[in-house]
Amino acid sequence: MNTEKKHYQRPLNFKTGKVEMNFGAGGKASSQLIADLFAKNFANEYLLQGDDGAYLPPLKGNIVISTDSHVVTPLFFAGGNIGSLSVHGTVNDVAVCGAKPLYLTAGFILEEGFPMSDLKIIVEDMAQAAAEAGVLIVTGDTKVVEKGKADGVYINTCGVGIVPEGVHLSGAFCKPGDVIAISGDIGDHGIAVMSERVNLGFETGVKSDTASLNRLTQALVSQIPSLRCMRDPTRGGLGTTLNEISKQSGVGMILEEDQIPVKESVEAACEFLGLDPLYVANEGKLIAICGQQDAEKMLAIMRSDPLGKNAQIIGQCIDDENHFVQMKTAFGGFRMVDYLTGEQLPRIC
Amino acid sequence: MNTEKKHYQRPLNFKTGKVEMNFGAGGKASSQLIADLFAKNFANEYLLQGDDGAYLPPLKGNIVISTDSHVVTPLFFAGGNIGSLSVHGTVNDVAVCGAKPLYLTAGFILEEGFPMSDLKIIVEDMAQAAAEAGVLIVTGDTKVVEKGKADGVYINTCGVGIVPEGVHLSGAFCKPGDVIAISGDIGDHGIAVMSERVNLGFETGVKSDTASLNRLTQALVSQIPSLRCMRDPTRGGLGTTLNEISKQSGVGMILEEDQIPVKESVEAACEFLGLDPLYVANEGKLIAICGQQDAEKMLAIMRSDPLGKNAQIIGQCIDDENHFVQMKTAFGGFRMVDYLTGEQLPRIC
Repeated sequence: MNTEKKHYQRPLNFKTGKVEMNFGAGGKASSQLIADLFAKNFANEYLLQGDDGAYLPPLKGNIVISTDSHVVTPLFFAGGNIGSLSVHGTVNDVAVCGAKPLYLTAGFILEEGFPMSDLKIIVEDMAQAAAEAGVLIVTGDTKVVEKGKADGVYINTCGVGIVPEGVHLSGAFCKPGDVIAISGDIGDHGIAVMSERVNLGFETGVKSDTASLNRLTQALVSQIPSLRCMRDPTRGGLGTTLNEISKQSGVGMILEEDQIPVKESVEAACEFLGLDPLYVANEGKLIAICGQQDAEKMLAIMRSDPLGKNAQIIGQCIDDENHFVQMKTAFGGFRMVDYLTGEQLPRIC
Repeated sequence: MNTEKKHYQRPLNFKTGKVEMNFGAGGKASSQLIADLFAKNFANEYLLQGDDGAYLPPLKGNIVISTDSHVVTPLFFAGGNIGSLSVHGTVNDVAVCGAKPLYLTAGFILEEGFPMSDLKIIVEDMAQAAAEAGVLIVTGDTKVVEKGKADGVYINTCGVGIVPEGVHLSGAFCKPGDVIAISGDIGDHGIAVMSERVNLGFETGVKSDTASLNRLTQALVSQIPSLRCMRDPTRGGLGTTLNEISKQSGVGMILEEDQIPVKESVEAACEFLGLDPLYVANEGKLIAICGQQDAEKMLAIMRSDPLGKNAQIIGQCIDDENHFVQMKTAFGGFRMVDYLTGEQLPRIC
């Protein structure tokens, strides 16, 4: 027992070490992992309280809570990794509800034997993503499961944010005539991850768009009075997300295919992989819908943000009792855009 | 494609069905799982908003946030399952910080092929545990990973609660002379789970104590002015948790072995399994520490709650620059109680 104790009083080996079962057992090794890795990188006054939860100051106004578990494979991909993604994903889910994200929690499920060097990079990138988004990781949890009972690391994040007074957005608030915008090129994240899986990363050269959208969303919230709804089209892509909104609001939608921005490289990779960019995941793109009177202003605000420089108005909500999403194709015809029905891209986030 | 679409418009098969990859792909199958299982069981106005996060009313005062990922094996054990445990665990982490838990999030990682009938029981038990604790599951997330990349189901919950005015508890607030109480018999949860693993469940007859402690904690918070700290001794058990508190507060502790309540059946099972009940996990027990003047009142309040009927004063904080936790044994000697150092009980919660 004494040997073991001494072992864990030595620094953790972040070069050649591996995740061990006792890192998750709640004893001395767990404490050391928290101190040497998580507390060190995420350091803030709340996390350092060291109690079972974070004790936080009062929040003014309505709040938004959101959660996502991240199981992306591979863990590292062009443009990011599961660490940065797990921050961006939840920051964005809170932000698109109109809130300013303040706090994140982080729950790690680690697979025994996972390289500590990789874990360190993932945690450092989470810390950097949180700092860039202006959010604090205030509390967390680590579990370890036996080799073969996970896939390296899974990360759950939960986010809490505050909503400015008078703001209430929802996918249920859209009306016929409302204008639909997207903040930039679609499909980058999904194609970056899929390219890694099939060893085409170098050929496609596509990078994930994974990023926190909260500065852009807050600009829209404060300046667009008729803003109805924002959404980040992740799993299921633009096509599925617009279907969800149309059903929530009880409207139809008409999209203009030639206004939907897609990189040539993404288009080519989609053709090669048999994917439709409309259903490919994004992790740094924003759908925003507002009244017609604010359409140009919304587009200008989007384009003034580096993350929205390729923003486009891509369509409009219409009166349609079937709540169909339709697309006017480049050839002048119409096609139906349904929900994603199969498992086009499993474990994309 | 059309066949597939029709397939998912049929009800999900909760009798003989299995979890499929596309339940987590964000498309139609994901929507159906949310509607037919999660929304149906967790139903509340916030969850039914159907946006990327839950939009919630203002919270008055300080707040507490906590999170836990649950990876317990086996998923079902005497006295509970991963579903009820995932609610109790996070409700308790919020409650021991002095807060009234209000909201939970739920993040599921499902393994492809997991029986839908088991998932249904787990979700129903989560819903029941949440209702009993008076908390709402307001938002969630579901991911599916390939067979062999998880172990049935992992559940992350994150909890948010509000702290009554003037209340601030922490493991850092204990002083020499403070009195330490435990709400009942220790080690039940760990032994219940371990017994299942070694097929001794029937012989030991021990049931997990998994339960929400928030009514008991709120009674203590409102009636014990000198309450310093509460903690639920889960992973690592009573011994590790008291070490954490003694280090946070910079005090030593003296425990009375003959005052620490342990069931005979748990004691016997511990002997058989080579475990020390001091380090065996609990999921429905409370450590509470207050000033000497309130000790009897604290004990009386604990004993008046069904979950605290076997409560005992088990020791005291002392002045000790080494911050050691020591135990006066039944034979009159002293032994050191250190942190759990090994991986005594992996995946116990």
